[in-house]
Amino acid sequence: MYVKDFKWEKDITVKKLVDNMGQLGYQSVQLAKASEVIIKMKKNSAKTYLTFTSNMVSCGLRGFFAQLVKLKVADVLVTTVGGIEEDIMKSLGEKFSIGNFSADDVELHERGINRVGNVFIKNESYMKLEDWMNPVLTKLYQKQKRWTPSKLFKEIGLLLEDDSSILYQAAKNDVPIFCPAITDGSFGFHLYLFQQKHKDFIVDVVADFGNILFTSNHDEKKAVISLGGSISKHHAILSTLLNGGASYAVYMTTAHKTSGSMSGATTNEAKSWGKVKDESDVATVHGDVTITFPLAMIKALEVFEEEGLLPFGGDNNE
Amino acid sequence: MYVKDFKWEKDITVKKLVDNMGQLGYQSVQLAKASEVIIKMKKNSAKTYLTFTSNMVSCGLRGFFAQLVKLKVADVLVTTVGGIEEDIMKSLGEKFSIGNFSADDVELHERGINRVGNVFIKNESYMKLEDWMNPVLTKLYQKQKRWTPSKLFKEIGLLLEDDSSILYQAAKNDVPIFCPAITDGSFGFHLYLFQQKHKDFIVDVVADFGNILFTSNHDEKKAVISLGGSISKHHAILSTLLNGGASYAVYMTTAHKTSGSMSGATTNEAKSWGKVKDESDVATVHGDVTITFPLAMIKALEVFEEEGLLPFGGDNNE
Amino acid sequence: MYVKDFKWEKDITVKKLVDNMGQLGYQSVQLAKASEVIIKMKKNSAKTYLTFTSNMVSCGLRGFFAQLVKLKVADVLVTTVGGIEEDIMKSLGEKFSIGNFSADDVELHERGINRVGNVFIKNESYMKLEDWMNPVLTKLYQKQKRWTPSKLFKEIGLLLEDDSSILYQAAKNDVPIFCPAITDGSFGFHLYLFQQKHKDFIVDVVADFGNILFTSNHDEKKAVISLGGSISKHHAILSTLLNGGASYAVYMTTAHKTSGSMSGATTNEAKSWGKVKDESDVATVHGDVTITFPLAMIKALEVFEEEGLLPFGGDNNE
Amino acid sequence: MYVKDFKWEKDITVKKLVDNMGQLGYQSVQLAKASEVIIKMKKNSAKTYLTFTSNMVSCGLRGFFAQLVKLKVADVLVTTVGGIEEDIMKSLGEKFSIGNFSADDVELHERGINRVGNVFIKNESYMKLEDWMNPVLTKLYQKQKRWTPSKLFKEIGLLLEDDSSILYQAAKNDVPIFCPAITDGSFGFHLYLFQQKHKDFIVDVVADFGNILFTSNHDEKKAVISLGGSISKHHAILSTLLNGGASYAVYMTTAHKTSGSMSGATTNEAKSWGKVKDESDVATVHGDVTITFPLAMIKALEVFEEEGLLPFGGDNNE
Repeated sequence: MYVKDFKWEKDITVKKLVDNMGQLGYQSVQLAKASEVIIKMKKNSAKTYLTFTSNMVSCGLRGFFAQLVKLKVADVLVTTVGGIEEDIMKSLGEKFSIGNFSADDVELHERGINRVGNVFIKNESYMKLEDWMNPVLTKLYQKQKRWTPSKLFKEIGLLLEDDSSILYQAAKNDVPIFCPAITDGSFGFHLYLFQQKHKDFIVDVVADFGNILFTSNHDEKKAVISLGGSISKHHAILSTLLNGGASYAVYMTTAHKTSGSMSGATTNEAKSWGKVKDESDVATVHGDVTITFPLAMIKALEVFEEEGLLPFGGDNNE
Repeated sequence: MYVKDFKWEKDITVKKLVDNMGQLGYQSVQLAKASEVIIKMKKNSAKTYLTFTSNMVSCGLRGFFAQLVKLKVADVLVTTVGGIEEDIMKSLGEKFSIGNFSADDVELHERGINRVGNVFIKNESYMKLEDWMNPVLTKLYQKQKRWTPSKLFKEIGLLLEDDSSILYQAAKNDVPIFCPAITDGSFGFHLYLFQQKHKDFIVDVVADFGNILFTSNHDEKKAVISLGGSISKHHAILSTLLNGGASYAVYMTTAHKTSGSMSGATTNEAKSWGKVKDESDVATVHGDVTITFPLAMIKALEVFEEEGLLPFGGDNNE
Repeated sequence: MYVKDFKWEKDITVKKLVDNMGQLGYQSVQLAKASEVIIKMKKNSAKTYLTFTSNMVSCGLRGFFAQLVKLKVADVLVTTVGGIEEDIMKSLGEKFSIGNFSADDVELHERGINRVGNVFIKNESYMKLEDWMNPVLTKLYQKQKRWTPSKLFKEIGLLLEDDSSILYQAAKNDVPIFCPAITDGSFGFHLYLFQQKHKDFIVDVVADFGNILFTSNHDEKKAVISLGGSISKHHAILSTLLNGGASYAVYMTTAHKTSGSMSGATTNEAKSWGKVKDESDVATVHGDVTITFPLAMIKALEVFEEEGLLPFGGDNNE
Repeated sequence: MYVKDFKWEKDITVKKLVDNMGQLGYQSVQLAKASEVIIKMKKNSAKTYLTFTSNMVSCGLRGFFAQLVKLKVADVLVTTVGGIEEDIMKSLGEKFSIGNFSADDVELHERGINRVGNVFIKNESYMKLEDWMNPVLTKLYQKQKRWTPSKLFKEIGLLLEDDSSILYQAAKNDVPIFCPAITDGSFGFHLYLFQQKHKDFIVDVVADFGNILFTSNHDEKKAVISLGGSISKHHAILSTLLNGGASYAVYMTTAHKTSGSMSGATTNEAKSWGKVKDESDVATVHGDVTITFPLAMIKALEVFEEEGLLPFGGDNNE
């Protein structure tokens, strides 16, 4: 394929831009390829695992993830527990602000503000979460003593009734959410405090490993879309691997492979899983996910919509 | 400003997406800010220096750079000589292809193909450049013996008559192109071979330093848009600095400040120039320029077009 | 402090080199600062949390981590479960090889080799782990039905009797190992298979959150040395934060703060914890941990040894 | 080769550490390989091109570069003009300081301080350079009107008489210094001001391209050690390529190949030059050069010294 000189045209849509990116070098063509791989996932009815880290929820991609669940584009979610917390906080009406990467951290601390890059979260938002969590845990504990994380999130999701909530949409659409490190956040602290009062309260992470394994089987096609690295990426890869490997994989990350980290591991690895045989079925895109993911996914959504692959004709208001 | 959950809407335009990015965290909001700074440059009639490295010409941003010159958005260009060569090759009909970052380099060499990331350039393209250069240099030498690089590029540009050519559009629109390392490429090799036959042929880089200094003065507002690093970035900053400093600066790069390189230097430095006083007048965006630059610039172009700030109503076909 | 021109001297030691780095710019001086912060941790008897990701165990830093536990330099460990698995495999006699980042992944798969960057792990190593795990889990289950991860690792560690093993040294020296995502690896798969046969087998991650909280208290000084990012970094920061914040922090990472990820979060954040007040008590070093960590830590160890701060005079053979 | 668990031993030397790195994964083994490639360069009497950017001179590697010239390890130097300026300033007694990456740039500006990452350079140092340059240029102009950059630097070097000066050692040891963008710095500004008064003063960059071409020929072995990217890296690669390609190549950089930049281009490319056939003759190391270069080079110097390959037995005091 030849490089084609890009030119702006008035009112250019995102879809048109991503089409053009397919003939631009470096990460542009990678992004356009990622979009094509996502389209293949859907057209080939692959079970699709979407993974993201909590910072992507805080920054405002939350609504997009919820929308993707609603539109049946993501079948299984894997994330870190911070993402669960922030999704709940937002459903409770809390707002995060956009600040500055080089804000004065000592001053922020004095003002009770927590910084995640250039996103600010108030202490009060954490307190509101705490206040809400306690009665919810009590009610759930009355139902049963032993919970898997995914079952907990489903029950919580049903309580939220917020169209933009990941947990709510997931619960409503029977999309399980896995979180292999459920205690690694203030959520974990609340679980701990609750267990202090109820020694027989158990969060069974081992059983949830079985649950993620049973989200797919050897015979069906599987696909992974991983945003960022961490255990959310690793867990989705691991569970599809144990079921024979993913057929499609898109990794979007700022990390590089040179330090041997999971965050920087490329989709070439996917080929070593033994399922992915064709170069055209995997794509790694280097760059900030807040920019690359909307671009690649919007192109795919527009195609799905044109081809009638979305529920309710893609109408977000149902 | 609050984070706003992003959601896809059918047929979303690039402008709309970048508007949304203004309320997304991390590099999204940085990109939206960069777009705002570019809009300010134009509205405040700042003399705008656009810098890029040669790989951005090879990858297909060439047509966009040419268009920006035509639309009077860039007033001065600074680049590395590879960008000059590839612009000419393309005007001579050569095509580059999109390949693979992990192509077999030994095999490529045997096939006479040169790799720039995932962009491939054939040896023949370089030979075509060579064949074309010789008579052109002879003709120019007959005019005068001592040339500055910017004067050379202008004469060459006028010969190209290719609407998508950076050199052609620059020559036609009186936008000077500076290239402080004119010998660092096959272009330099041809100059050297020519000088071997014509000892009094001189390329006067010192005089061109004066020329870039006189592209602006202390009293007018100056702006820098730097894509990537290298001497093209440094040269634009240096020359605006010697004229009192830029009022606006947008840096787009994959490099980070942690190694003290010019590529990774941030716009915070711009504040140390003594002219930029307001946070809202500078923006650094981390990411691949083939993705971030079209996004930020398209948003600005749409605004310019709406507000009648483009020549011929922004009509590319004049 | 002035920059001092570096010069090589014959037989230069690592300690001398790191001393020199204190007067070299960019990441050199950051590394030298990190070394000073580590020295302060020890001299001020801070409880020290060392966190690392599994790839650092695979690559060969395993022996160094074990040594640091033995030398009473690390008081609490936090890691991902892959690091646990690979530590056991090595104690069982398995060897990993050094390969190539651009190895042919399809071919590797056919040969039963798994790639982690440029480190190769054979399928057989995983099978050996599996064979060893089953009887161990059975024996532990006979002791009790409900285990925290840290208690499990301690029992396993005592079985290994390998001086270079992290688990063995930790168990022997009463250094707890925390792993908030214990199911995210083949270890988790074995736990799951075991639980299928023994429904009342429980891994209690919630109780372990209490355990990490009780490794320190508000009144004592706390310190964090984080290698790489992921939940291991986050978990140590979170648990020291809930006890009033760390007084000292060293982060070593290849990630940058620009994408808002935990991996790239800097020690400036540590100041927002409210405990770290002095610039000289935190340091972030950008670079591959396999290079930066040995350098910074060796300098500290040499100082500890000189000042009699190591047990058995630092004699590794006791 | 198997991974070997690293352990600290008291008084460990840099050579021993780098030996150990040869059995550690990720960038450690890359660094150890780079050291081996540098050793091969010397043992096979390859003409060695050392390239670096100006920030590496400012940060304190200047003395090391000068030492490498003196020890006949580098045969040709390529750099950016900032490195020339700062080498002279230091020879004139100016000192740079080590500051902070996040210093207040507005305040620095008011105090007349220029920031390069975490290295600070005073305005006075630039003024001192200016005062010294003028009479020197006058004297040189009296000798001849037309100068190549490399000839200029040689004359200047002879005037400096400073053992730690790159220009002085290069002049004394007949090692040419090339700088394809000689005007891109305050040096260029002084050349320009001088030319204003002496219109026939010419800096002939085209002739210097011939000079770098004649530093080697097709028949001899050539080697490139590139620190950072920019035109210094490109120029060395280009000139060895035109002479048939380098046999050995070591690239040390913080940039990655994913954006198609010269800074991030890997030594795999070197294979496409057609000369490098063996994996063991090239190495790319990702990381901050202030850390990686001293390590790899010291190991090589210790080997050279042991094997009697250094002049005056490696005695720095001659």
